[in-house]
Amino acid sequence: MSRVRVHNLTISLDGYGAGEPRTADAPFGHGAHIMDWFKATRSFHGMVGDPAGGETGIDDDFAGRWGEGIGVEVMGRGKYAPGSGTWPEEWRGWWGEEPPFHTPCVVLTHHPREPLELAGGTTFHFLDASPADALARARELAPGTDVRLGGGVTTVRAFLEAGLVDYLHLAIAPVLLGRGSRLWGEGLEGLEHQFEDVRVTSTPSGTTHVEFERP
Amino acid sequence: MSRVRVHNLTISLDGYGAGEPRTADAPFGHGAHIMDWFKATRSFHGMVGDPAGGETGIDDDFAGRWGEGIGVEVMGRGKYAPGSGTWPEEWRGWWGEEPPFHTPCVVLTHHPREPLELAGGTTFHFLDASPADALARARELAPGTDVRLGGGVTTVRAFLEAGLVDYLHLAIAPVLLGRGSRLWGEGLEGLEHQFEDVRVTSTPSGTTHVEFERP
Repeated sequence: MSRVRVHNLTISLDGYGAGEPRTADAPFGHGAHIMDWFKATRSFHGMVGDPAGGETGIDDDFAGRWGEGIGVEVMGRGKYAPGSGTWPEEWRGWWGEEPPFHTPCVVLTHHPREPLELAGGTTFHFLDASPADALARARELAPGTDVRLGGGVTTVRAFLEAGLVDYLHLAIAPVLLGRGSRLWGEGLEGLEHQFEDVRVTSTPSGTTHVEFERP
Repeated sequence: MSRVRVHNLTISLDGYGAGEPRTADAPFGHGAHIMDWFKATRSFHGMVGDPAGGETGIDDDFAGRWGEGIGVEVMGRGKYAPGSGTWPEEWRGWWGEEPPFHTPCVVLTHHPREPLELAGGTTFHFLDASPADALARARELAPGTDVRLGGGVTTVRAFLEAGLVDYLHLAIAPVLLGRGSRLWGEGLEGLEHQFEDVRVTSTPSGTTHVEFERP
């Protein structure tokens, strides 16, 4: 059974997954600090070539689960590259020549283009599709594996509203952004009823990990 | 030094302190369940005449701190009584003939009226005033004590925006209301910088207690 999982989706206490304005140099706008908990973990340090750096502990335990059993990621365009509208020819995304995904990735966009294969096993596939159709394509690309839904918050909200998420891990940073891209919306009223288990774990960094999981 | 303290202010994961519509029979609208953690505590049971009932534990430890050193409460009109606009003559508030406050209470309203003294030491004083002026009046009523800021979220937000809160205890329930009265707003961007300490404690009920405290 292939599940759809969200890991390490970080929001401020007031629900923003990114601040304003989002630019090429500041993907989180004024909200980069919501990711401090993640950047402090050994898992993150490992992703950026410093496997002995960072801290272990509960935050790291959560951070490190993003890859287990995952064969493909679905992400919104904003996680792939800055801006909106048609693509500059040369855009190859935020992630450099060897992105940390190492799997196929489906990028949701209203401006599909040819797939982009990069080093280390990451190929970006660009799709203008509903959440359900995006999942179908992801499962074609990596049959029998779990699908990671990578964010950002607008993309995750759409999948939650469609009832398509099996596991949602939120990390809540104890800061207030005041403005930006908000995860929550009217369409998520009673979201907890979609899930069997709701678990909440606070950590010494001041982070609150909230997990919603279907049986 | 008289401090201004907020205790047990409960919000949903998406930041709502009450749902919709708020009526005399449903003070929290469709959001009454956000208070389940509080109603399960021994402290709450004690307030309603059942001192041996309810549960002890971390949730109860938080719930029970609301009265220590407090000599007066400031509350928004919505915590005193349903509705808005001018007062029906007979309105004596939500809280019955012996309210649980047992201190003077300042009720913020655009429609001041004569004070109302009830059994057990609770007297409601009705004031059309700014947050700073309301605190000045509260301190006249109970010199040398701490002031509890009782809610609802609109009232607390106004005091936070004015930088007038010394201790804020939020309880976050792991549910999504989708709509209602929201605590957060643009004016609270960077709120955490007002406070020296930020502490986060999750409990077995799924509640997250967030404390912001000035030195």
